[in-house]
Amino acid sequence: MGYNLLKGKRGIIFGALDENSIAWKTAQTVHDEGGTFVLTNAPIAMRMGQIDELAKKTGSEIIPADATSVEDLDNLVAKSVEILGGKIDFVLHSIGMSVNVRKGRAYTDEKYDFTQKGWDVSALSFHKVMQSLYKADAMNEWGSIVALTYMAAQRTFPDYNDMADNKAYLESVARSFGYFFGKEKKVRVNTISQSPTATTAGQGVKGFDGFISYAEKMSPLGNASAQDCADYTVTLFSDLTRKVTMQNLFHDGGFSNTGVSQEVIEKF
Amino acid sequence: MGYNLLKGKRGIIFGALDENSIAWKTAQTVHDEGGTFVLTNAPIAMRMGQIDELAKKTGSEIIPADATSVEDLDNLVAKSVEILGGKIDFVLHSIGMSVNVRKGRAYTDEKYDFTQKGWDVSALSFHKVMQSLYKADAMNEWGSIVALTYMAAQRTFPDYNDMADNKAYLESVARSFGYFFGKEKKVRVNTISQSPTATTAGQGVKGFDGFISYAEKMSPLGNASAQDCADYTVTLFSDLTRKVTMQNLFHDGGFSNTGVSQEVIEKF
Amino acid sequence: MGYNLLKGKRGIIFGALDENSIAWKTAQTVHDEGGTFVLTNAPIAMRMGQIDELAKKTGSEIIPADATSVEDLDNLVAKSVEILGGKIDFVLHSIGMSVNVRKGRAYTDEKYDFTQKGWDVSALSFHKVMQSLYKADAMNEWGSIVALTYMAAQRTFPDYNDMADNKAYLESVARSFGYFFGKEKKVRVNTISQSPTATTAGQGVKGFDGFISYAEKMSPLGNASAQDCADYTVTLFSDLTRKVTMQNLFHDGGFSNTGVSQEVIEKF
Amino acid sequence: MGYNLLKGKRGIIFGALDENSIAWKTAQTVHDEGGTFVLTNAPIAMRMGQIDELAKKTGSEIIPADATSVEDLDNLVAKSVEILGGKIDFVLHSIGMSVNVRKGRAYTDEKYDFTQKGWDVSALSFHKVMQSLYKADAMNEWGSIVALTYMAAQRTFPDYNDMADNKAYLESVARSFGYFFGKEKKVRVNTISQSPTATTAGQGVKGFDGFISYAEKMSPLGNASAQDCADYTVTLFSDLTRKVTMQNLFHDGGFSNTGVSQEVIEKF
Repeated sequence: MGYNLLKGKRGIIFGALDENSIAWKTAQTVHDEGGTFVLTNAPIAMRMGQIDELAKKTGSEIIPADATSVEDLDNLVAKSVEILGGKIDFVLHSIGMSVNVRKGRAYTDEKYDFTQKGWDVSALSFHKVMQSLYKADAMNEWGSIVALTYMAAQRTFPDYNDMADNKAYLESVARSFGYFFGKEKKVRVNTISQSPTATTAGQGVKGFDGFISYAEKMSPLGNASAQDCADYTVTLFSDLTRKVTMQNLFHDGGFSNTGVSQEVIEKF
Repeated sequence: MGYNLLKGKRGIIFGALDENSIAWKTAQTVHDEGGTFVLTNAPIAMRMGQIDELAKKTGSEIIPADATSVEDLDNLVAKSVEILGGKIDFVLHSIGMSVNVRKGRAYTDEKYDFTQKGWDVSALSFHKVMQSLYKADAMNEWGSIVALTYMAAQRTFPDYNDMADNKAYLESVARSFGYFFGKEKKVRVNTISQSPTATTAGQGVKGFDGFISYAEKMSPLGNASAQDCADYTVTLFSDLTRKVTMQNLFHDGGFSNTGVSQEVIEKF
Repeated sequence: MGYNLLKGKRGIIFGALDENSIAWKTAQTVHDEGGTFVLTNAPIAMRMGQIDELAKKTGSEIIPADATSVEDLDNLVAKSVEILGGKIDFVLHSIGMSVNVRKGRAYTDEKYDFTQKGWDVSALSFHKVMQSLYKADAMNEWGSIVALTYMAAQRTFPDYNDMADNKAYLESVARSFGYFFGKEKKVRVNTISQSPTATTAGQGVKGFDGFISYAEKMSPLGNASAQDCADYTVTLFSDLTRKVTMQNLFHDGGFSNTGVSQEVIEKF
Repeated sequence: MGYNLLKGKRGIIFGALDENSIAWKTAQTVHDEGGTFVLTNAPIAMRMGQIDELAKKTGSEIIPADATSVEDLDNLVAKSVEILGGKIDFVLHSIGMSVNVRKGRAYTDEKYDFTQKGWDVSALSFHKVMQSLYKADAMNEWGSIVALTYMAAQRTFPDYNDMADNKAYLESVARSFGYFFGKEKKVRVNTISQSPTATTAGQGVKGFDGFISYAEKMSPLGNASAQDCADYTVTLFSDLTRKVTMQNLFHDGGFSNTGVSQEVIEKF
């Protein structure tokens, strides 16, 4: 099944927790497209999830790594190259967590220890991943690095809290590192700004169901699902998108460029 | 050769003039990916170009159409559905021409007859194409419509003249019609904002060689070529990008998000 | 009353119809700030409105001009300089009209004669105004030109119809002409993207009341009124904003950067 | 001198180091416009600068505060209200520093302790300032909060290093907090994205002189100076811009919307 779009390509996929995860769907789709990869997640997330099952299905190995630890990431990169038998062609960063959200702190009442932890996990980790890859010279030319983000980086959604600011930082890291990775290594770096998605992580955000329903009604093509996102990610990993870089790509059924939809306005 | 990404899909491709054209490369690549299509261009452009050769190579028929003529477009749509044996899955709009540029009029000295003609050909034609398709209910669900544009719609390039304003209008039409085409027909509409490309049309712009060289030095991955654009367009026609709509997608090696590059700053 | 922000400055104000007009409020506020100006509108609009009253209150002369007529505009510019006793410091373009909207044509069923007329009146007229000023060398250094626009140029509002595309063209003209007016004459050109405003013109748009109510609930500070817009415009005419140019400035109580508000999401 | 635009208004100004500082110029201009304020800076910055001189000239008191310390900020807010005799109407945040830049670390070789410190000082401090004001209910209705930023938040400038990511975070904080400050307290929050400015801080960035010269040639109106920025800031503090919020406002002589200028392209 699939088009063989990623035949012979090797990668690292962060953030597959369970079958609702975008990273999980992406791993399956990449596998269908002929790619091989290492799966990784934080040790604690791995205990909660079913990543072993995914590894079996896709013939992948798992390397636990805390994405805020340079040491873990350096180890992950070195081991991945070894296991996969060559340099890396694609990376998916699908990591995000706000301690303020988890602890129920309002945006106007942040606890800054929490803020810093969330920023490190959700945003700075993307820099750390790329710096480990860059320093180890572990990416092949025309490789592709993708991180998942959300439109709260551009416009405020009150319940999204400090994740908005984390995503803005993450998207900036994509541009900043994309410049150097492009110039020096011919590697592209992009973010996908995905519809709200009913993942296990997404469900931690307050009022998430109402918000998914609102987004569905605002989007001319409806919300993009986790599988849709996996499909789109595969095109960005393929050789057909080699000159797309430093972009934040909205993948949302048109939400981002809809001012209001007929269904929504009818409520007013 | 190719991945069979467009197997079974039918389309219409506007604007193939000669082998330097993005539309020409796209036609070849779509053909390699298993798609079938009708080629079209303005009668006058067809006399100057070598579209017959392309039609032969790709087993396509040619239907001449003036893209500013609703009658011609209605005829094109009806005939295409007939020839291809079913509704349309993909459309490429690659049409642009400024009479002010051709006649050497400065942006601050426009002749408004020229301005209107250029706007009709370059921008309104995109609306006319979509309205013909929409009214004839000629698009399949999850079909994909793409028009080519340039970043002058966002930032001023002094020699680009009134084409900047035409492209801004064109990109707005993509969003506006994309809303309705999405809601009513599940069809997506996007524009690709391409690097300056050494096509026969592009070469009409004053100072174009210097500009291509500048863009090359500003883009971390270098300029995107016509073939790169064809490849990218194919991903947007495929089933892997179904939820991308109403977007203006920069395909430019990173130019759009580079403030300045090392090579450029070194000249100052 | 006022701060004397525009003392000694001379201008031209387009589009004052009646006391609901943003241009009307701007004229009054400019007058309060010490500026002098010529009022202008299309002959037909002048018959319908009460512009004479405004002229009396502000000690202004009226010069009728069809903003699509180069001849009328050249005459307006020449006469204004003569009447005001010197070159122009500020210009407000507040003109917009869609024949498709007026005639009840859907966006997917445009009549292209109507589309062209609306584009000429709403969008190209801004170029024509500036070209007349530029060719006559009628602007003082550090002068300021402002046109009013709406966010439909960025995101689709289904009832806004082809005005969205016209506004996108208008905003592009601001950037394009702003480049040349800046370089050659040190004149700045900007657009203000205003909240939906209950003007006589605005009320022609279908479902306008519901939309104003929606925008009010989406905007953290509420909608900007016509008077708010007049106040903001005055700052852009003043000497305090000399380096702001080629910008589209959202003046909307925060609507443009709000993804969703609490009040709106609660309906879902 | 001045227009009395800020008569009766009270504020806090962060970041005045010496007479090259934007904050210094802003303080002087606010004073000329009739506003009163407290000056604040980090204890270490105060030892290096001449803030006492500014305080004397403007009749202001100085309260040292480390903008990363919630305790210091809470104290600053409480004292300011006391000294000024009422709630706050305006705040200027002009704080930024990258340890990676200072220590000569490349963007691809960040030391993450440095990154975190720079983020805390340059970006999170803006949240901390607003949270202190918000919790103390220290802002008057229709108050205005402004932070200074740079376009590297949108596009990569290779020497700007991790300050790009910090500025992206800062701008996101403006939107996020602007939502709540608008809804709950009718306070507006914006960022000004200023031309590169030859301040003492700006001069720490590698290749800064060449960059200023490049920006000057790219900007149709030339770079905005520190005094220009002070003038613009005053308009944002005034009552004439009450509905502008959650915006990032480019103040750069047109740089941000210029793709290339004639002078720059002529070098290619």
